[in-house]
Amino acid sequence: MSVEVRDEEIVEKIVKGEIKLYEVEDYTGGDSFKATELRRRAIERITGVRLENIGNFSIDANRAMKANIENMIGVAQLPLGIAGPLQVKGEFADGSYFIPLATTEGALVASVNRGCTAINRSGGARSFVLRDGMARGPVLKAKSAEHAVRAARFIEENFEKLKKIAEDTDPFITLQRIEPYIVGRNLFLRFVYGTGDAMGMNMATFATDEILKFLEQELDLEHIALSGNLCVDKKPSAMNFLRGRGKTVVSEVVLKREVVKEVLKTTPEAMAEVCYRKCFVGSAQAAAYGFNAHFANIIAAIFIATGQDEAHVVEGSHGITTAEVTEDGDLYFAVTLPSLQVGTVGGGTALGTQKEALSIMGVYGPGNPPGSNAKKFAEIVAAAVLAGEVSLIGALGARHLAEAHMRLNR
Amino acid sequence: MSVEVRDEEIVEKIVKGEIKLYEVEDYTGGDSFKATELRRRAIERITGVRLENIGNFSIDANRAMKANIENMIGVAQLPLGIAGPLQVKGEFADGSYFIPLATTEGALVASVNRGCTAINRSGGARSFVLRDGMARGPVLKAKSAEHAVRAARFIEENFEKLKKIAEDTDPFITLQRIEPYIVGRNLFLRFVYGTGDAMGMNMATFATDEILKFLEQELDLEHIALSGNLCVDKKPSAMNFLRGRGKTVVSEVVLKREVVKEVLKTTPEAMAEVCYRKCFVGSAQAAAYGFNAHFANIIAAIFIATGQDEAHVVEGSHGITTAEVTEDGDLYFAVTLPSLQVGTVGGGTALGTQKEALSIMGVYGPGNPPGSNAKKFAEIVAAAVLAGEVSLIGALGARHLAEAHMRLNR
Amino acid sequence: MSVEVRDEEIVEKIVKGEIKLYEVEDYTGGDSFKATELRRRAIERITGVRLENIGNFSIDANRAMKANIENMIGVAQLPLGIAGPLQVKGEFADGSYFIPLATTEGALVASVNRGCTAINRSGGARSFVLRDGMARGPVLKAKSAEHAVRAARFIEENFEKLKKIAEDTDPFITLQRIEPYIVGRNLFLRFVYGTGDAMGMNMATFATDEILKFLEQELDLEHIALSGNLCVDKKPSAMNFLRGRGKTVVSEVVLKREVVKEVLKTTPEAMAEVCYRKCFVGSAQAAAYGFNAHFANIIAAIFIATGQDEAHVVEGSHGITTAEVTEDGDLYFAVTLPSLQVGTVGGGTALGTQKEALSIMGVYGPGNPPGSNAKKFAEIVAAAVLAGEVSLIGALGARHLAEAHMRLNR
Amino acid sequence: MSVEVRDEEIVEKIVKGEIKLYEVEDYTGGDSFKATELRRRAIERITGVRLENIGNFSIDANRAMKANIENMIGVAQLPLGIAGPLQVKGEFADGSYFIPLATTEGALVASVNRGCTAINRSGGARSFVLRDGMARGPVLKAKSAEHAVRAARFIEENFEKLKKIAEDTDPFITLQRIEPYIVGRNLFLRFVYGTGDAMGMNMATFATDEILKFLEQELDLEHIALSGNLCVDKKPSAMNFLRGRGKTVVSEVVLKREVVKEVLKTTPEAMAEVCYRKCFVGSAQAAAYGFNAHFANIIAAIFIATGQDEAHVVEGSHGITTAEVTEDGDLYFAVTLPSLQVGTVGGGTALGTQKEALSIMGVYGPGNPPGSNAKKFAEIVAAAVLAGEVSLIGALGARHLAEAHMRLNR
Repeated sequence: MSVEVRDEEIVEKIVKGEIKLYEVEDYTGGDSFKATELRRRAIERITGVRLENIGNFSIDANRAMKANIENMIGVAQLPLGIAGPLQVKGEFADGSYFIPLATTEGALVASVNRGCTAINRSGGARSFVLRDGMARGPVLKAKSAEHAVRAARFIEENFEKLKKIAEDTDPFITLQRIEPYIVGRNLFLRFVYGTGDAMGMNMATFATDEILKFLEQELDLEHIALSGNLCVDKKPSAMNFLRGRGKTVVSEVVLKREVVKEVLKTTPEAMAEVCYRKCFVGSAQAAAYGFNAHFANIIAAIFIATGQDEAHVVEGSHGITTAEVTEDGDLYFAVTLPSLQVGTVGGGTALGTQKEALSIMGVYGPGNPPGSNAKKFAEIVAAAVLAGEVSLIGALGARHLAEAHMRLNR
Repeated sequence: MSVEVRDEEIVEKIVKGEIKLYEVEDYTGGDSFKATELRRRAIERITGVRLENIGNFSIDANRAMKANIENMIGVAQLPLGIAGPLQVKGEFADGSYFIPLATTEGALVASVNRGCTAINRSGGARSFVLRDGMARGPVLKAKSAEHAVRAARFIEENFEKLKKIAEDTDPFITLQRIEPYIVGRNLFLRFVYGTGDAMGMNMATFATDEILKFLEQELDLEHIALSGNLCVDKKPSAMNFLRGRGKTVVSEVVLKREVVKEVLKTTPEAMAEVCYRKCFVGSAQAAAYGFNAHFANIIAAIFIATGQDEAHVVEGSHGITTAEVTEDGDLYFAVTLPSLQVGTVGGGTALGTQKEALSIMGVYGPGNPPGSNAKKFAEIVAAAVLAGEVSLIGALGARHLAEAHMRLNR
Repeated sequence: MSVEVRDEEIVEKIVKGEIKLYEVEDYTGGDSFKATELRRRAIERITGVRLENIGNFSIDANRAMKANIENMIGVAQLPLGIAGPLQVKGEFADGSYFIPLATTEGALVASVNRGCTAINRSGGARSFVLRDGMARGPVLKAKSAEHAVRAARFIEENFEKLKKIAEDTDPFITLQRIEPYIVGRNLFLRFVYGTGDAMGMNMATFATDEILKFLEQELDLEHIALSGNLCVDKKPSAMNFLRGRGKTVVSEVVLKREVVKEVLKTTPEAMAEVCYRKCFVGSAQAAAYGFNAHFANIIAAIFIATGQDEAHVVEGSHGITTAEVTEDGDLYFAVTLPSLQVGTVGGGTALGTQKEALSIMGVYGPGNPPGSNAKKFAEIVAAAVLAGEVSLIGALGARHLAEAHMRLNR
Repeated sequence: MSVEVRDEEIVEKIVKGEIKLYEVEDYTGGDSFKATELRRRAIERITGVRLENIGNFSIDANRAMKANIENMIGVAQLPLGIAGPLQVKGEFADGSYFIPLATTEGALVASVNRGCTAINRSGGARSFVLRDGMARGPVLKAKSAEHAVRAARFIEENFEKLKKIAEDTDPFITLQRIEPYIVGRNLFLRFVYGTGDAMGMNMATFATDEILKFLEQELDLEHIALSGNLCVDKKPSAMNFLRGRGKTVVSEVVLKREVVKEVLKTTPEAMAEVCYRKCFVGSAQAAAYGFNAHFANIIAAIFIATGQDEAHVVEGSHGITTAEVTEDGDLYFAVTLPSLQVGTVGGGTALGTQKEALSIMGVYGPGNPPGSNAKKFAEIVAAAVLAGEVSLIGALGARHLAEAHMRLNR
């Protein structure tokens, strides 16, 4: 039987449901590249839709099917543009970086780019990682609040033992602290870990799992869920807004008055007012955890470009932008991101285009010492978010000024 | 001068900064496909990184550069897998749909797929669009709260006039209502629009702009920002969690007890308990706007696959999952998404792979009547989120059960 | 048997538990004044504590036991001080008002008093009631989300009928609107009522009850709770912060620069900066629903003095203070209270001291037209809150300035 | 000149504004009792309102004017009732306690009383103080985020020195920890203190003030406000809901099935369902920080009775109620109060009626060891809140059941 005849037969069986989408590799000798093609052909036949673009890709299907996807039929291609370069000075980053942004929202790249210009001409962005720790927050059921209280005290007293259990699971993990939250007889434990250059959710999960096994036995607690939503993973929450998850990063610049005028076509006063009324008064009234203009746009575009977990855009949207006129008439501008979850190893970082995008910034792979590369990346991402905020608030400020002129002149 | 020599010259000038990244089209006769190549080559030269995967794409660079990206150098390729088919019965959707998911998070497609099986075997998902309206919330400065109060009353009295102004900007837009929020002398106006099959943010912005021009003049208000963060766009907020933005959708299924047992390897009781302690008690304690397990994962993967605005994953993560044992011992399971922002026209929907992905579900392009296609899509997305929640809470329930057995048997 | 012997006998029986605390009136011919004394004597005997102060009171125990208290043993005496007079110009208030404040927090009355001085010298406070509606939000269980959706549509279509049912329960109630919130198969209905001069929670409850009886029958919905926590009564919530409950009131003043200097010993700039960094940046980071300095202090003290429901201090603490330097160098200062729940009839308003306190402001009893007295009261309360905020932020500004001088001079 | 003539003269001068309300003591030889009378007479004359009830009091006006009030004219009398006794077993409380409740909300005392009965018949409440620390969160302005980061690191490294500075201000204060929050160049420091039997806000303020003086000098930081709203004092906030302020307390009981039936006239299943749909689904949808039925009612009534700061009802309203049917068919019921701010010394605790109310529970004054009395009080308060929740959710459950029967029988 020729290859094509055999392929055709498999496709037909998929169409008929005799071969499930996830069973195709069983018929291709484990070859996911071939299986991807056959699945795609089957979907085309069932739906009558030609999938030629989805079928056009260069990333390694076999690698992807091992770590990143199931039932692969091809790829989504997202336009990738470049902003920058952007000067960033942090404790890990120190240089001028091009920012890869994958997005379908017109004007975003141009906007970030303009922000980069304004920042560069004011001496560059300074970024700092304030906190760094990946959290996992399981929920256990105790027999009573009394039981939960006793368990929490035991955990506090045996922290070193639990730390050892966690750290035996992976050479790059460190247990930083455990925060107990007791609600009736529910015992939530928020474990916070250092995870080197990895975003670290999987590492945190494995380590937490091992600790739980010990605790359940030792304390006779009932395991309910490895994630009890006190992590908090991919949900908006005051927990992460306040306490942080992943990296808490701040990036700042003092925009010179003339730069605001020449690059952004507005004034420090107009930008400060827009930031105050929109990002503070407006977000206050909206009961938001995002006191910013559009963190999420920049985060989403960088995350997709570099193989981060795209659902972590949720936490990336948390945070605060401040814009304040200085005594010298310049504009102090800063972004604070409490919960930036990034890694330079693991996840989607090793896929073809994602690896290239990380490499453009010089942050692909493990750092030396461990963790330094992810922190460098976080500093650059925060600076890029700063650029996006500067640009959008600048644009709103320019419009505000223009309207003011029109009103006064009419 | 040969093409290659000329190209090489342009690349060199980009490298030297003599041609800016966004000026390259000026040297390629407006050809963005060529400009994309030249920019990429310049970035390769500057950074020393080979960008062969980023350079491999089939989407139309010229089209993308018009609407979706600037400074394009290629694409990000994200693995795209298929879950389903999933039976969905709504007021617009009615059939069995394959769900395209673009993600780098291993196990996600498989998990949604398992949820589809459980739902299908229980009779399929039922979805309903409860509300539908895109919001834009500008901030204006009044002279005083008194002035703002008078302005708000004027706006209420002149609603029909403002509605006409808005609706003259686009045949597909309808102004539904205006909610005023006064904070001191700040006047926030939350405009809510029907926007047909488009996600509609741009339409809403244009229409709002026209209304503001009228109001500023008529009422002597000072324009501060077209978005005053009461929209709320791409920030976590109680506003959207409570009031909705885009489409508010609910999807539900009654999972039969035997299906829970056979497909999910657990019991309705275990799943209901996990949902209660994790999604309610846990999210309550975390002060979250997401009382769910992982809405964001499914939303992000569908949004990337289908050309939605990927930063809208933020609002997509808002919402509530309920799982309740019925009197018959089955499991009532539902997801409520207050703020799902989707469109089947505009944005990134017309790009090569994105158009194909929408077509797989039969929801590409405008609906008849207008808006029906986007609502159908919303119903399918909500059902896919339901599948994701069923599967993950099922898995946690199975683990919970397994641990319980171990504890009892030791 | 002498009265004293008989009393002594009753006291003994209470002590022995043979007469329950709530049964004492059965032995005093329904005389609550006597019963109060006997209960107190019994508690004294059991605990060995002399309750001479608790036993000293002049309010009418019989009246109180009918509407305000059970098992009465006397009163709590709270020191009552006077701030003001405060000039208030609203749509209902127009004059100079003394503010009665019952509190045990030293310096509060003095602080409000200082704020009154600053406001009066700047021309008085202007107050506006932006919204007025008491909410009750029951929860019903539908058979499915589909059922809930149909029910919500029925309710929308039959609004006039439901309005009639509600308004037949009380001559002073009007049903303004019904907001449905569907979460899975839970149907929450937020009913909003005008309630005249009463705070109105009881009226709203009765009216809602009648509507529910009709809806349960008509739509086959299961009654779960008359309050489903979407009212939201006495819990902090974005719902009330955003949408309001009771009265939404704003009060404002432009503090003249020289008044800020002479009365508050600081500058408009210092006060604006304190307000920005404390009430906006600080409250933002705290994920608060109170972007103010100390609304709750003033609300609590007025509420206790005037017989409002003291647990409504919770909603009274919601809200936003803005302080902005004007182009003329003065200070625009405003407070916005989204959820102020006050009445001038009903509740504790008719008790001896409370009635006197309301009378001091000229707002005891029903207004003409109905509702006008409660609105007048709300305008005065908001102005008093304004005075409290002006004073505290002024004091912080003065300290900030003083420290700045010290730093510069050292 | 006779006393009466002299008094009359003073009253007239107050009326004419020649003597300010706060200056009256200057004319009475510092006698606040007399001054209180004269102020009252002046207010009577100005407003034409007889204040005979306000003028009837037995608390010590001189003492009150020193610590609790200014411009005193008398008292507010609030009806005080007794619920209980309530059996409470904690780590400090162990016995049967009468609960004094000062309120004007009819049915509240009766409701709590019924809850006490249900709890007592189920073996009493168990209460635990999980955390104990009063917070003060000032805001400082640094020159830059970089400066703030360096300052935060200095503070961490010099914790012992700062602890000593704080603890030198008061023998009963201990500095537990300092949490830094950096937002742009704003440095917020959340200081958490043990404060013995006092609620401790003043102690915390003084100690923080001393630390700030040192830090401002040492680190060249600009003092903005001693409270930067990260305390968070008297505002609803996720900060206190999550992290606690004052005492975090849990109180629990397992209500026997027959007790639920006999005392509350309902079933464990009905109560668990009400609690789930109202306190969890409802409060979730309302974006509340209160997942409970009516904590604030009980807190407010006890706080007023016992001289606590009545504005702390705000934080007292935060928290979570859980009600879960046990395997034996009983009802596990618990309340968790993250932020209960109580003291048995200082504030209004020494006033006549308040001291008596605390004495009824045996918790007036300092404990031995220090702090034990306030913790005992906290345990009792939490148990009283538990009683209030049991009773109200029981009542709703009974109604839910009754309606269900009616629906089934019609």
